[in-house]
Amino acid sequence: VALGDELILGASVDTNTSWLARELLGLGIENTRTLVAGDDEADAAEALRLAFAAAPLVIVTGGLGPTEDDQTRHAAARVFSRELVFSDEAWQGVVAWFERRGTEIPAANRRQALLPARAQVLRNLTGTAPGFAIEEAGRLLLALPGPPAEMRAMFTDAVRPRLLARVQGGLAQRSFQIQGLPEARFAEEVGEWMARGANPLIGCSVKDGILSVTLRARAADPDRAQALADSRAAQFRERFQRYIFHEGPEPVEEVLGGLLIARRLSVSAAESCTAGLAAAQLARVPGISAVLGATFVTYSNAAKMEVLGVRAETLASHGAVSEQVVAEMALGAARRAGARAALAISGIAGPGGGTPEKPVGSVALGTAVDGRVETRLVRLPPTTRESVRAGAANLALVELLRRLLRGEGPA
Amino acid sequence: VALGDELILGASVDTNTSWLARELLGLGIENTRTLVAGDDEADAAEALRLAFAAAPLVIVTGGLGPTEDDQTRHAAARVFSRELVFSDEAWQGVVAWFERRGTEIPAANRRQALLPARAQVLRNLTGTAPGFAIEEAGRLLLALPGPPAEMRAMFTDAVRPRLLARVQGGLAQRSFQIQGLPEARFAEEVGEWMARGANPLIGCSVKDGILSVTLRARAADPDRAQALADSRAAQFRERFQRYIFHEGPEPVEEVLGGLLIARRLSVSAAESCTAGLAAAQLARVPGISAVLGATFVTYSNAAKMEVLGVRAETLASHGAVSEQVVAEMALGAARRAGARAALAISGIAGPGGGTPEKPVGSVALGTAVDGRVETRLVRLPPTTRESVRAGAANLALVELLRRLLRGEGPA
Repeated sequence: VALGDELILGASVDTNTSWLARELLGLGIENTRTLVAGDDEADAAEALRLAFAAAPLVIVTGGLGPTEDDQTRHAAARVFSRELVFSDEAWQGVVAWFERRGTEIPAANRRQALLPARAQVLRNLTGTAPGFAIEEAGRLLLALPGPPAEMRAMFTDAVRPRLLARVQGGLAQRSFQIQGLPEARFAEEVGEWMARGANPLIGCSVKDGILSVTLRARAADPDRAQALADSRAAQFRERFQRYIFHEGPEPVEEVLGGLLIARRLSVSAAESCTAGLAAAQLARVPGISAVLGATFVTYSNAAKMEVLGVRAETLASHGAVSEQVVAEMALGAARRAGARAALAISGIAGPGGGTPEKPVGSVALGTAVDGRVETRLVRLPPTTRESVRAGAANLALVELLRRLLRGEGPA
Repeated sequence: VALGDELILGASVDTNTSWLARELLGLGIENTRTLVAGDDEADAAEALRLAFAAAPLVIVTGGLGPTEDDQTRHAAARVFSRELVFSDEAWQGVVAWFERRGTEIPAANRRQALLPARAQVLRNLTGTAPGFAIEEAGRLLLALPGPPAEMRAMFTDAVRPRLLARVQGGLAQRSFQIQGLPEARFAEEVGEWMARGANPLIGCSVKDGILSVTLRARAADPDRAQALADSRAAQFRERFQRYIFHEGPEPVEEVLGGLLIARRLSVSAAESCTAGLAAAQLARVPGISAVLGATFVTYSNAAKMEVLGVRAETLASHGAVSEQVVAEMALGAARRAGARAALAISGIAGPGGGTPEKPVGSVALGTAVDGRVETRLVRLPPTTRESVRAGAANLALVELLRRLLRGEGPA
């Protein structure tokens, strides 16, 4: 259950419940229903009741702040027919937070120490709102703060260990990152492995051209769960080998960034349609500064020539979206930045600019490693300008990663 | 109601319901409850029933695809006690979509033409899944496809006009983009204007340091609604004048990009911690290629010196995150790209790298217009590495926009 007028009225997107659903699935607990309601005690209480009608464990996020809007404590007290009482333990947590900040406690924050009677306090180390847990007659309610960073920290520190202790039997998980296979074809080829109730069960999410696949096996005996996962993972590997570029849950930039850092391989980028997305994605990786050289956004032909040294005649004979141009872009970026590796992207993001030979979604990708260039021309689904750009950035990172995995660019 | 195993299990975040809630609010319709359920007929039907228990209008997204998983048509038929029948009209839409693509229709797609009896078909021009509407006894169910691009197109084309025709009286809307005021202080200063039931009602969403504010007035008489909106807008303008950088719903890159294009003012960027985010954000604007010169990501000090000509002694005496360095970065980018305007960003995104004088979240921003430089040092909330980077990119765009709005850089 996610609570908040900002969620129900669309000012913010609720990312908490999907994060929690993934964490719970990792513990072998399947979310069966999500409810979102506004900052209103009756609505919130009704949402909690409807959630308990579907499952004995309910996690509620939001509504724990210091303002009149924040109704979770009242709603929980109502659902469990308890009084609200002032919790010294919760109050100590609020006091400690303000003391760490060296600021005075606003009077309103006293409300945050009001909890349903006999609720167990969940300490919040990253914010003011204390969480709480109520367990009664086989039902467990966990109330966590709404800000995602606070919610995640509290779940990880205080909730996850508690749930883990209750999970029956063993759970084993394997993850794969896949590129080059459309989702529909993947679903077809994976067939019954993805059916509900399958064990191991395969789950899959798609983002910007990359399929992230998780395989989860459950068994009463933990060793048996591991064996089930290993056996299905081996079958999976055999079936999808040519598309898998990484085993594990990490996104491509993390795997690529880790390899570049480990090999001390300096890297640059030359981006046209993605206009900085690939560099920004790579720069998410902490520690990347050790290897990330200058990168260049060269949107216009003039910029490609002046900054990267792409030749006018290459542009004229092959067009800006061509394997020849991205080859020169990649080499130019590497040279200009003094980097051993570089990637280059030039494509037609749309909505305009497509031609019969090169429709919207056409993207030329180039990579250079120690002066050796590889290029490809791909067609991404022309769904939106943003989806083409995000997909192109992702693909370029995968291209460079695949080369490093083949052993190019050793330390 | 959003349907899909990928949503309930956390593989994807549901962005459809919050988009729809905003659109509905624009029509004066308040969302009261959101439910998310998996790809299971009984769960989906139960979610529809619970939604109708809260409101007479229910919009369901997802579950209209061609696979066995897609249960919306079955659930809707069950809730309204109707048979599923093959709809020739829906089938013609599916056929037309494949014909436009020039590909054969897979046998599975025939399922998509099965609709509850007497449902009205909503044509899908951007995908295969037909939507449908069922109206009975004061209840209206609208079933839209799950992919956001398809859902949005169908809502805009087929649903919005239908709902608009039913909205009683007049609705007037004014929007403002605000920067420089923390959300909590905004909420304090806006006070009772934001209270539930206020008319005009003020809604606010915050993203990466920018507050997007919408003011909605309702009245039986449309002229009266306009007058109410104008009067509150005037008060709002007076109270928040120094923070407003744009009146309208457009995001900063669209306003800035539009001005740059209108003035034929060429632009470049030099980015350190944001590593391409600002350029990528600006490049979202269609037509930006006319003015977007080369831009540079210079993460390391070496790159700042070699590519942008930042002086070693400036870096040594003031540090990379300083007004002096971003001034040289902005001028260097403009010179290197041959652009009249440029922005520069250098900051500490964290988690490491903070110092007592320059903690995580410190960002130096520089702008250059026709050789004149302005700089600022700001402190963003150090929530996450990504939030600091996204906020810094946004702020840099706002800084340049404010200069253009003051009349700098005429065509």
